[in-house]
Amino acid sequence: MKIRVINPNTTEAFSHKNLLVARAVAAVGTEISTSQPDGGAASIEDHCDEAVAVIGILEEVLKGEKDGMDGYVIACFGDPGVHAAREVARGPVVGMSEAALRAATLVANGFSIVTLPSRTRIHAERVVREAGLAQHCRSIRAIDVPVLEFEDANQQVISALMEECRRALVEDKAESIVLGCAGLGDLVPQLGEALGVPIIEGVGAAVKTVEGLIALGVSTSKIGAYAYPVEKIYSGMFRALSPHDESAQRARPQPPTQTASRD
Amino acid sequence: MKIRVINPNTTEAFSHKNLLVARAVAAVGTEISTSQPDGGAASIEDHCDEAVAVIGILEEVLKGEKDGMDGYVIACFGDPGVHAAREVARGPVVGMSEAALRAATLVANGFSIVTLPSRTRIHAERVVREAGLAQHCRSIRAIDVPVLEFEDANQQVISALMEECRRALVEDKAESIVLGCAGLGDLVPQLGEALGVPIIEGVGAAVKTVEGLIALGVSTSKIGAYAYPVEKIYSGMFRALSPHDESAQRARPQPPTQTASRD
Amino acid sequence: MKIRVINPNTTEAFSHKNLLVARAVAAVGTEISTSQPDGGAASIEDHCDEAVAVIGILEEVLKGEKDGMDGYVIACFGDPGVHAAREVARGPVVGMSEAALRAATLVANGFSIVTLPSRTRIHAERVVREAGLAQHCRSIRAIDVPVLEFEDANQQVISALMEECRRALVEDKAESIVLGCAGLGDLVPQLGEALGVPIIEGVGAAVKTVEGLIALGVSTSKIGAYAYPVEKIYSGMFRALSPHDESAQRARPQPPTQTASRD
Amino acid sequence: MKIRVINPNTTEAFSHKNLLVARAVAAVGTEISTSQPDGGAASIEDHCDEAVAVIGILEEVLKGEKDGMDGYVIACFGDPGVHAAREVARGPVVGMSEAALRAATLVANGFSIVTLPSRTRIHAERVVREAGLAQHCRSIRAIDVPVLEFEDANQQVISALMEECRRALVEDKAESIVLGCAGLGDLVPQLGEALGVPIIEGVGAAVKTVEGLIALGVSTSKIGAYAYPVEKIYSGMFRALSPHDESAQRARPQPPTQTASRD
Amino acid sequence: MKIRVINPNTTEAFSHKNLLVARAVAAVGTEISTSQPDGGAASIEDHCDEAVAVIGILEEVLKGEKDGMDGYVIACFGDPGVHAAREVARGPVVGMSEAALRAATLVANGFSIVTLPSRTRIHAERVVREAGLAQHCRSIRAIDVPVLEFEDANQQVISALMEECRRALVEDKAESIVLGCAGLGDLVPQLGEALGVPIIEGVGAAVKTVEGLIALGVSTSKIGAYAYPVEKIYSGMFRALSPHDESAQRARPQPPTQTASRD
Amino acid sequence: MKIRVINPNTTEAFSHKNLLVARAVAAVGTEISTSQPDGGAASIEDHCDEAVAVIGILEEVLKGEKDGMDGYVIACFGDPGVHAAREVARGPVVGMSEAALRAATLVANGFSIVTLPSRTRIHAERVVREAGLAQHCRSIRAIDVPVLEFEDANQQVISALMEECRRALVEDKAESIVLGCAGLGDLVPQLGEALGVPIIEGVGAAVKTVEGLIALGVSTSKIGAYAYPVEKIYSGMFRALSPHDESAQRARPQPPTQTASRD
Repeated sequence: MKIRVINPNTTEAFSHKNLLVARAVAAVGTEISTSQPDGGAASIEDHCDEAVAVIGILEEVLKGEKDGMDGYVIACFGDPGVHAAREVARGPVVGMSEAALRAATLVANGFSIVTLPSRTRIHAERVVREAGLAQHCRSIRAIDVPVLEFEDANQQVISALMEECRRALVEDKAESIVLGCAGLGDLVPQLGEALGVPIIEGVGAAVKTVEGLIALGVSTSKIGAYAYPVEKIYSGMFRALSPHDESAQRARPQPPTQTASRD
Repeated sequence: MKIRVINPNTTEAFSHKNLLVARAVAAVGTEISTSQPDGGAASIEDHCDEAVAVIGILEEVLKGEKDGMDGYVIACFGDPGVHAAREVARGPVVGMSEAALRAATLVANGFSIVTLPSRTRIHAERVVREAGLAQHCRSIRAIDVPVLEFEDANQQVISALMEECRRALVEDKAESIVLGCAGLGDLVPQLGEALGVPIIEGVGAAVKTVEGLIALGVSTSKIGAYAYPVEKIYSGMFRALSPHDESAQRARPQPPTQTASRD
Repeated sequence: MKIRVINPNTTEAFSHKNLLVARAVAAVGTEISTSQPDGGAASIEDHCDEAVAVIGILEEVLKGEKDGMDGYVIACFGDPGVHAAREVARGPVVGMSEAALRAATLVANGFSIVTLPSRTRIHAERVVREAGLAQHCRSIRAIDVPVLEFEDANQQVISALMEECRRALVEDKAESIVLGCAGLGDLVPQLGEALGVPIIEGVGAAVKTVEGLIALGVSTSKIGAYAYPVEKIYSGMFRALSPHDESAQRARPQPPTQTASRD
Repeated sequence: MKIRVINPNTTEAFSHKNLLVARAVAAVGTEISTSQPDGGAASIEDHCDEAVAVIGILEEVLKGEKDGMDGYVIACFGDPGVHAAREVARGPVVGMSEAALRAATLVANGFSIVTLPSRTRIHAERVVREAGLAQHCRSIRAIDVPVLEFEDANQQVISALMEECRRALVEDKAESIVLGCAGLGDLVPQLGEALGVPIIEGVGAAVKTVEGLIALGVSTSKIGAYAYPVEKIYSGMFRALSPHDESAQRARPQPPTQTASRD
Repeated sequence: MKIRVINPNTTEAFSHKNLLVARAVAAVGTEISTSQPDGGAASIEDHCDEAVAVIGILEEVLKGEKDGMDGYVIACFGDPGVHAAREVARGPVVGMSEAALRAATLVANGFSIVTLPSRTRIHAERVVREAGLAQHCRSIRAIDVPVLEFEDANQQVISALMEECRRALVEDKAESIVLGCAGLGDLVPQLGEALGVPIIEGVGAAVKTVEGLIALGVSTSKIGAYAYPVEKIYSGMFRALSPHDESAQRARPQPPTQTASRD
Repeated sequence: MKIRVINPNTTEAFSHKNLLVARAVAAVGTEISTSQPDGGAASIEDHCDEAVAVIGILEEVLKGEKDGMDGYVIACFGDPGVHAAREVARGPVVGMSEAALRAATLVANGFSIVTLPSRTRIHAERVVREAGLAQHCRSIRAIDVPVLEFEDANQQVISALMEECRRALVEDKAESIVLGCAGLGDLVPQLGEALGVPIIEGVGAAVKTVEGLIALGVSTSKIGAYAYPVEKIYSGMFRALSPHDESAQRARPQPPTQTASRD
């Protein structure tokens, strides 16, 4: 099966890190590829960055459909564009936050999210709330380091992150840690060894979730909220995203007639 | 004061309808203008349309800031892009759904949303849930007519809409009706007269809400979730949206030092 | 349009303060008047005070209906009597707490309420919960000063209040402040300048909300929960509140027959 | 122990019915008395009636404290004034709705409320929500008969009520019935025999709940939300309700000093 | 009436303490007996202990039915097995946690639970959430002492408990204390005198609740979720628990035919 | 990796069906085994059956730990014993309901659960609520056929099930179907082909979820709620379940000291 991990920012180092993390956990027979948009933001740290990222994600899913992908991972904490991507994709689309939060609750009663910039807190709150997992969230903690600075992090910054994790365990009574940024995935072994609790990283968690759905033979439901987009031609710079030509050939597998006409 | 009503689709007839609805309710001294993106979707009926619309909204808010706007209305049921727009704007930004739902609960204990395509139901559910008003929502009902077809609606389609409103009142015990599409604003008098309950249309409701916030002297908080976007240069076709040059001059009004360093 | 701001305590200084705050934000053409009950409590600080205040509010709304008011503001944090007042009034009735909380969430993701006596905390909790905005409430903080003592507040007491606001911003991560008492309205400029975040005061917020509803042509729904009171004669000291004579003349505008008989 | 069942309307037949229902379930050694306000509404069917009733309840609790009552039942579905009454009373105060809903959930997973006028639905919704029991509430059903008409109910009206109960069991999957009006208490045997499921009537349920709290030696907490009312003199017709003279003598049992100064 | 207090652990000292606490609050005419399983855990401190306890509870309820019990109390904080016990029992079954939490909210707006081992926190969280009372729960606090060690507690351990209660009142703004273990019931007078707020102990609270339900003539609903268990023969060591022979004779009181066939 | 699918009833046909379903979806390198308790209930249809099943599950997990299992699936809709099993197991334990509900929400906005006996509805409601997914649950539907009868189901019974699924899609607007019983797993292809929407079966979903967690290197957190059971000797027939000898050797991998002492 072919799974594409979409890095919605334009920083190649992130895509590369995603690739390593994803391949390390993929099953035999799973072909992982990664992609990133041609244009957009070098890191996703606020709602404007997310808005730009969603367009990039849609472009990448459209490409992925042409490449015959069986499923997709959105590798950005906050899961931007996940609903739109599900409309476009035939196979399953899973965001790294939802996958991570759910994994955390299966091995621990309470988790804390530890992330980088403080202002991404609202995105973490949103995914916790939308996943219906607020009762398990002990805290959301941030060290105030910009995402791209962390890329070149020296051990001092990593120590700050670890200290915040420790506080979550001791002060907030967390029993596991969810890493709140796609760029933190390679720290799992180091943190896990030091802290002795499950450290959940979302890119790998999402890869395994997509793999599972594909193995179950489950595709995105094409009735209701995630039906293929309404056919129309977008104008201007969005022309290439128009849900027109694609929908022509994918229109064939129809939901049964009795559900097609329901309100 | 200057308020811009942003129609996030590319159909001029919608912008014109918004203008009429907004001017009809604006206070003396409020200058209403409308705008719409250069490119994008002719109607907003699914998540892909929303994704495209958000970029258009950001462009329009950036233009609006240059034009000295004091506040903005997002004229699309579903309130796409409202958080991103608040990051960019100095003054308040209000979505038509949130304004409509809140207005409804001030004059009735229970409301129903009546909208056009069934698949927009998920957007209506989202705004109800995010507004924290689920306990007042009696039902979400849809007649299955595409948004643009409704533009040329004959009396027969309007009758179908009215019939759905009636059912909401009788079967679901709604006490007011919220219209679930920016294109329905001109039907308020006709529906109100026929049904005898408050009919809430969000564009006007949002205009009055923005007017109110401006009159109170309240701007968008620039600490935390709605702070100005992180300065960076977007690449590719998003270059013009980069939160860079603008942020240079707006960087001056700082939050107090004790809050700047908070986590 | 004519809006009456009802101060439900018997302290004239509060009504006067309300008048100044309300007029400062009212639109051209809005005629603000204030009123207060003949008897009752000099300040509203517990449930007993609220109980007494509700009767006063009903009396004032009945007077207001005779005076041809188009809408009402209830100027007491906690919004006592707002449902009963909506039954009696033809036009919209808005409580200052609900208006303030909603305004806060439009310009900031998280707010804190800062109020005077600690025991009014339960009233603040109630309005937050009933407004469905708990997810945005970062904290409720109180300085323990009786309401009427604050009236003669020297700068020292104001400093205590400001310090509590600062703590809400720094320790609780609030991004805006809601003032939890109608008597604090005149502190908005001083607090806003010092703190650099939106300071929301409910009397003005409610005036603008009522103005908006009236401009939209929206009245209180007269089917269901806010229908005119059931006609009956109250005995004893409540005789004057009986929903009888008034209902005779207001009985004319009926909801449509199909909704009158619904269960 | 001495328990007073307060009927907050002015209809003596209700007080008498309460007395019979309460005495039938009271334990050996429990002395039941009933009371009703001198003035007010003959039945409680909307928010205005409730507002008037709350004043009556406060008067009756003040009298009850002089009469040495150990606890109180508020015999009106909707539990008006329960928080204010708790401030005034030393012993426990229990509303009939909360007692009934809780009893229902101890013997059945799902209950339905069956009540008289449709417009009291909002009161039933409120008590369900405030009791935190929404997940157990299968439906709220009303036959549209005014409360006082039901007093003279012939068998035809009772049959309508029973039919509504049956629908709740069959269509809504309720497993028990909560009667939504203090005037329905004497129908329990008849309904129980016909329907074969628990029929919960709140006056008796509240009497047993108060009895239980008194037997446990538990009084109303006098720190925080239910502390004795703030001392002040009410003016005008509320003078007799002033929380002044009473508070003088009851001021003695103080909470410990470390809690007195807490925020 | 005959009420059995089931201690689901095997420590006789607990059963004896339950007996004293229960008899101290029982009404005239209530016959209290206690029982405990023949085998199982000496204390209930985790989910495995609970699992074992539930089997013991079922055995004891089956015995109790043969002994003609009118109702049951489950004397373990966490209310293990309460749903299964309701299936087996004809009369009401009440868990001590639910009874305690509800009692607390009737005399105070906010409570804290103070318990022994930290790991029982998840059980306390569960009962708060399932009772729908999260909005009243100020905190769950634990001193980290194993349940059985507390049995031999010297004054030093009791002081630690009292200190934790004090912190709940001062730091968390609790207004009452719920004791989170059946073994703490005898500390109520000492704690109450020292702290000056309601101290709620669940065994007594549950006894009074069961007494109340029986006095009201309310039995467990035998349609839906708490119907008698499906008739089948358990194999192996569970043979004695098989819901077969008992159900033969208790099958007679049927729910009415119209509800028996409902879905 | 070695995963054991525990069928908590005593019917071998179920275990065999689980084996087929699990192997059909397992990854290369995953070794699936199944087990079932020696004694207990032949099917799990009420809370008593669940109580008995939990003991069987614990026995099977203890055996599994000796057999070197890396993870477990609990193959019973309702996920009985999942918390207790997590205490005992080193690796992850996943219940089929939670896995199924989560899978459903990744490919559809709304799901319905279709199950067999009506009285298991309360179990389905519980798992939906505990998973935090109530906002996605469109309905819970049951055909009233006992679990074991379904085992010998002819096409007529399957048609009834399919008809109920169809109603969920058309009347309740579900977009996917979750099968509410471990015995229905082999119907996925037939239902999926007929209905054209995702049909989610939990045993397979749970196998893939456990596989994913193991691949991620995530074990059950051994601090807090899922720590190894408190060491004690169970008496009587539960002796073999005592968390004693096992804990001796597994005591070695300790959480770090700073978390061991936290409250």
